[in-house]
Amino acid sequence: MNAKRILCVAAAAVALMAAQTADSLAETVKVELPVIEKDLPVDNAGNTQPMWTFGGTIPGPTIRVTEGDTIDFTLVNQKGNKQSHSMDFHAAIVSAADEFEAVKPGQNKHFTFEARKPGVFIYHCGADPMIEHIGRGMYGVIIVDPKEGYSEEFPEPDREYILVHGDLFETGTTAEQMIRNENRKGTLVNGRMFHYDPLHDPNAGMMLMAKPGERVRIYFVNAQVNEPVSFHPIANIWDKVWNSGNPRNVEHDLQTRIVPVASGAIFDIIPPKGRESVNVLVDHAMKHALTGGISVLMNSEAADDSLGHGDNLLPRP
Amino acid sequence: MNAKRILCVAAAAVALMAAQTADSLAETVKVELPVIEKDLPVDNAGNTQPMWTFGGTIPGPTIRVTEGDTIDFTLVNQKGNKQSHSMDFHAAIVSAADEFEAVKPGQNKHFTFEARKPGVFIYHCGADPMIEHIGRGMYGVIIVDPKEGYSEEFPEPDREYILVHGDLFETGTTAEQMIRNENRKGTLVNGRMFHYDPLHDPNAGMMLMAKPGERVRIYFVNAQVNEPVSFHPIANIWDKVWNSGNPRNVEHDLQTRIVPVASGAIFDIIPPKGRESVNVLVDHAMKHALTGGISVLMNSEAADDSLGHGDNLLPRP
Amino acid sequence: MNAKRILCVAAAAVALMAAQTADSLAETVKVELPVIEKDLPVDNAGNTQPMWTFGGTIPGPTIRVTEGDTIDFTLVNQKGNKQSHSMDFHAAIVSAADEFEAVKPGQNKHFTFEARKPGVFIYHCGADPMIEHIGRGMYGVIIVDPKEGYSEEFPEPDREYILVHGDLFETGTTAEQMIRNENRKGTLVNGRMFHYDPLHDPNAGMMLMAKPGERVRIYFVNAQVNEPVSFHPIANIWDKVWNSGNPRNVEHDLQTRIVPVASGAIFDIIPPKGRESVNVLVDHAMKHALTGGISVLMNSEAADDSLGHGDNLLPRP
Repeated sequence: MNAKRILCVAAAAVALMAAQTADSLAETVKVELPVIEKDLPVDNAGNTQPMWTFGGTIPGPTIRVTEGDTIDFTLVNQKGNKQSHSMDFHAAIVSAADEFEAVKPGQNKHFTFEARKPGVFIYHCGADPMIEHIGRGMYGVIIVDPKEGYSEEFPEPDREYILVHGDLFETGTTAEQMIRNENRKGTLVNGRMFHYDPLHDPNAGMMLMAKPGERVRIYFVNAQVNEPVSFHPIANIWDKVWNSGNPRNVEHDLQTRIVPVASGAIFDIIPPKGRESVNVLVDHAMKHALTGGISVLMNSEAADDSLGHGDNLLPRP
Repeated sequence: MNAKRILCVAAAAVALMAAQTADSLAETVKVELPVIEKDLPVDNAGNTQPMWTFGGTIPGPTIRVTEGDTIDFTLVNQKGNKQSHSMDFHAAIVSAADEFEAVKPGQNKHFTFEARKPGVFIYHCGADPMIEHIGRGMYGVIIVDPKEGYSEEFPEPDREYILVHGDLFETGTTAEQMIRNENRKGTLVNGRMFHYDPLHDPNAGMMLMAKPGERVRIYFVNAQVNEPVSFHPIANIWDKVWNSGNPRNVEHDLQTRIVPVASGAIFDIIPPKGRESVNVLVDHAMKHALTGGISVLMNSEAADDSLGHGDNLLPRP
Repeated sequence: MNAKRILCVAAAAVALMAAQTADSLAETVKVELPVIEKDLPVDNAGNTQPMWTFGGTIPGPTIRVTEGDTIDFTLVNQKGNKQSHSMDFHAAIVSAADEFEAVKPGQNKHFTFEARKPGVFIYHCGADPMIEHIGRGMYGVIIVDPKEGYSEEFPEPDREYILVHGDLFETGTTAEQMIRNENRKGTLVNGRMFHYDPLHDPNAGMMLMAKPGERVRIYFVNAQVNEPVSFHPIANIWDKVWNSGNPRNVEHDLQTRIVPVASGAIFDIIPPKGRESVNVLVDHAMKHALTGGISVLMNSEAADDSLGHGDNLLPRP
């Protein structure tokens, strides 16, 4: 593996090959994602529900490339599955009727695309009924780093995390019910309610961590099927925010930013210097926050350096 | 007709007169809109509901002027109508208590205003109860082209479309029910559910069309009474977006943008070059998309040149 | 008191001390806020509901400082109260676990913070369950004026108002019901439904006022617990909008802007010159507007100069 970073969050779920192109630094990155319909824990107590996933986890494996790279992608709808599935990369400029078509269990779908725009993008299943495929967990994140690299308006971070907010519906909720937002049970943060919030859930075993004064970059994706997110850092102010993750869309000193349905943004937070502190990253829509959408960012000199670096941007138990 | 473009979407609904002002290029554009309460088809199968309209269609006739022009407007509340009605142009800087007052059936309301700000604006009826007047279809679009014309940050498009998303409530839904968003039946796109989406509705006879590599400009208006729109192009990325349609508010490479209630924005999409493709313009809030808020943009060298040009920005059957 | 403006909206609720720092113009501003659980009128007819407040009013007293000032804050949870309470300033960069901790009745919480970022920020109680504390009225506004002062992109206003939109739930609504947005009765504008709207409520005794052609600055805060606001000026167009109130985040000529949950923005409106007019400041989400979220801005040469100046930015009966 070279400097282009590909995060293998779910071991064995993504096969990678980086083939340097002759006349540029752009690479071709091979990604293979199996669709796995399985029971998954949705809270910190280990309660499970039948979910649909890319690669066996919610969210699916994170894909990270650099602007200009090509993704050589294969969707594997495994034989034992019951549903048709598809892949819709928000980072791709292709054809919905071709690359994004659904395939039946036992079939694969292969396509390539160039990641031409920098940003943080959702990917999700678009098979009918789309609301159920997303609502059951079929989404993940693709980060396309800008080829220009860092700049004054897009400074290098000290630590990076990925946060994906999604809906949890009661088992058996139909697409029609999801359209009415009925039977919504909670907010999944990287696949679990209160995933990183021991303040609200005694079973939570993890927190996000940083050191005082570090620039912490949050790649945020809203995977909720119906509702925008009002993203806010309790006891802090977003230092900079980039809509859709593009460095050209910089905003300054925001207390809260809306993230539309099926969109993403980059949020930088700098915890107070010279002291321990707790900041809490929350969807300030209380109906989403109090049902799971709260994450603790613990800021201490003792912060684990393995968190928020390398392959550990999306911590899992 | 000179270079100032006025779109007569509903024939005979708009009377136009362009009177060049002596000492400038600004014009006075005469617009007369009758309010017509009538049954209208709300889907591609031809099912009708009793609606209230400007000019007999939903949305009403599009008005297009250049920044600095004056609109000489007359609202005609026809004798046979049962309701008082009014006109609220979001492009106007006037008095809500004067220009925008409601008039009874059989009465007219005349006023003029200068379109001083460029952008894409909703117009709607503001008579009490406003939620019912908008919720039954009384809205349309006014485009105010910037007097500076095109620039690097606001490039000339190859093709243009207007998309207006509104609510469809069950017949007989009261204002009180609409306030609770009850009995919402679907999303109207330019007046019909799945208007341009043969993928989801076999009765759909139309699609938006463009040629590969063209810059396609979407004038989007959210006419829903209660909820914002998360506007996204499936299998593409908005090349540029201008909030409220003002060239100064440019954002780059957005996957999805929020459009507030009763607002508008300009979205540019460039279909892939050198190939046929399908992009799909969707409110990614699934509750809105799966009930009608999906439009197919078919990209092919065979694209009909009459679509997206001249008076055909808002295609109707 | 010197040029640094502190607004004592609720008399005696805020004790103030401005102590000039030796080597700069930054000041320390002492603010003491008692939590008062009491019955308050929630409409213009004087109907009351049991509410929880900072300082006895909804919203609580406005705090106004200049970027770089230090707030020396004391929360007083009075002995007779029944709930634990806390203070969460969105303008503060501190620790949620320390400064923002909840204290029991009879206890105080003291902390200081430097207002390092300019803008208009909400403050609110963050005690569990937060949705109930905000939903019952525990919020207010802190304005942090930029130390650079005015500029071409952030011009000096002629008049200033503060508008805070919050929810009114039926008496006895539980936190669980609020999470489902059940029993929502109306929209409070600075603590009352239709507070400044005699057009919709004959009991309304106040309006906002300005003179034709004045630059009127609205410090808007969305204190609703669950839903964003689509803020629009009827019969006008926002001349400029600054997201979160930071002068660097300027947008131009917006018809409507989204304000996320628990956020703020500055909106400039210029009423028509040379004539009397009425503009109406409204959450264009009709479910919010028609239940209270409408304010009349009456523009006349006879406008009372005491309104929108000095300590009278948030008019109360």
